[in-house]
Amino acid sequence: MEKTTVLYTGKAKQMWATDDPDILWVEYMDQATALNGKKKVQIDGKGTLNRQISSLLFEELNAQGFPTHYLKTLDDTTMLVKKCTMIPLEAVVRNFASGSFERKFKVEHLKPLVPAVHEFFYKSDALDDPFINNEQAIALGFADKETIDEIHAMSDRVNAYLKERFANIGIDLVDFKLEFGRLSDGTFVLADELSPDNMRLVDEATGNSLDKDVFRKDQGPLTPVYASVLKRLKESK
Amino acid sequence: MEKTTVLYTGKAKQMWATDDPDILWVEYMDQATALNGKKKVQIDGKGTLNRQISSLLFEELNAQGFPTHYLKTLDDTTMLVKKCTMIPLEAVVRNFASGSFERKFKVEHLKPLVPAVHEFFYKSDALDDPFINNEQAIALGFADKETIDEIHAMSDRVNAYLKERFANIGIDLVDFKLEFGRLSDGTFVLADELSPDNMRLVDEATGNSLDKDVFRKDQGPLTPVYASVLKRLKESK
Repeated sequence: MEKTTVLYTGKAKQMWATDDPDILWVEYMDQATALNGKKKVQIDGKGTLNRQISSLLFEELNAQGFPTHYLKTLDDTTMLVKKCTMIPLEAVVRNFASGSFERKFKVEHLKPLVPAVHEFFYKSDALDDPFINNEQAIALGFADKETIDEIHAMSDRVNAYLKERFANIGIDLVDFKLEFGRLSDGTFVLADELSPDNMRLVDEATGNSLDKDVFRKDQGPLTPVYASVLKRLKESK
Repeated sequence: MEKTTVLYTGKAKQMWATDDPDILWVEYMDQATALNGKKKVQIDGKGTLNRQISSLLFEELNAQGFPTHYLKTLDDTTMLVKKCTMIPLEAVVRNFASGSFERKFKVEHLKPLVPAVHEFFYKSDALDDPFINNEQAIALGFADKETIDEIHAMSDRVNAYLKERFANIGIDLVDFKLEFGRLSDGTFVLADELSPDNMRLVDEATGNSLDKDVFRKDQGPLTPVYASVLKRLKESK
């Protein structure tokens, strides 16, 4: 397997084409951004930690029969995934109030949300990833009704799995962001990554953040925190 | 019927209690605001025009069997309505792209939206009436799932009626905002007002705005425009 041309350079990952038209090469970068890219720094070791956490969780989901884009790990910072056409929506699931939800509605930090709340954001750097409702997404052609329903159902299944997985190692899954796509044959799959860059995790014992909020809120070095999450996940496999 | 105490002073209306606990007194004011109240002026005659248009449309909806809060007109600027507990959501229906939808998603002005797009905004001056999705509204206790479904179904029925009503007088109903409430016995009713303060109307012949956009965009005096809408509605009854 050889990588050929860069297809996309994101905030924390770079996607390459390979000599197999159905397979993409994903490199996790040592970069952290916040505030939609306004805050950006290099953090040695972050790429490999996110790749390891993401590989571990995708492997578990694959083993559980979830349809995902994940194929295999190549090296410290690289994984191979099935090529898919991405649905241009970030699907957020919130189990507790935090972040933009907490700020927008001025609700108590970590207020439990039962059932979990789903939100969509339209992936558009030019428009600053605006919050969008289901009918707007359908009217603008970003997804049809059936796809929205598939995203919600799959998000709930992933939430059920991850919530329990993290609860078993003493961590509350506060919220997370998923992205989905379709393979060339139309199969709906979970794509993107599964790492503390895209989740809020709170240590049940200490109340400390174990995710990118450490970076967003300047609470200290990020890699020891991500490393501790990886260690807890690995030890409980 | 006597008005007793002021219950609420809004941007363009004042609500009073009356000697009947189930009836409220609504006075339409000669005031226009835009930009969530940042732009505010006095416009002589606006109150009576909005009251007249609102009375006319509520009377038609009542005659059609729609459940509304409207009881009757008292004088130029006053109507009586059934007291209800308001649902704290503004229900917007969009038939064509305009306003915040057009700006947020950078879509073509007046692009047709088929089927119509529904949006909710949480009525909160302190939070600047934020855009909210169905699940957020449910999680925050603003409405339950059944009420959301009732609002959507009633909004669609009102849209079907008003769209045709305005089309028959050469006017496109671009979008509008409705508010709903419940009577003391739980009956779900259409409330608030039905005027060009809460609708976007475009003259099919000229393309001119026939609504509060004339004020928002400083396109000239407002009352002749509202008077022309009232005249066209009256002449086609």
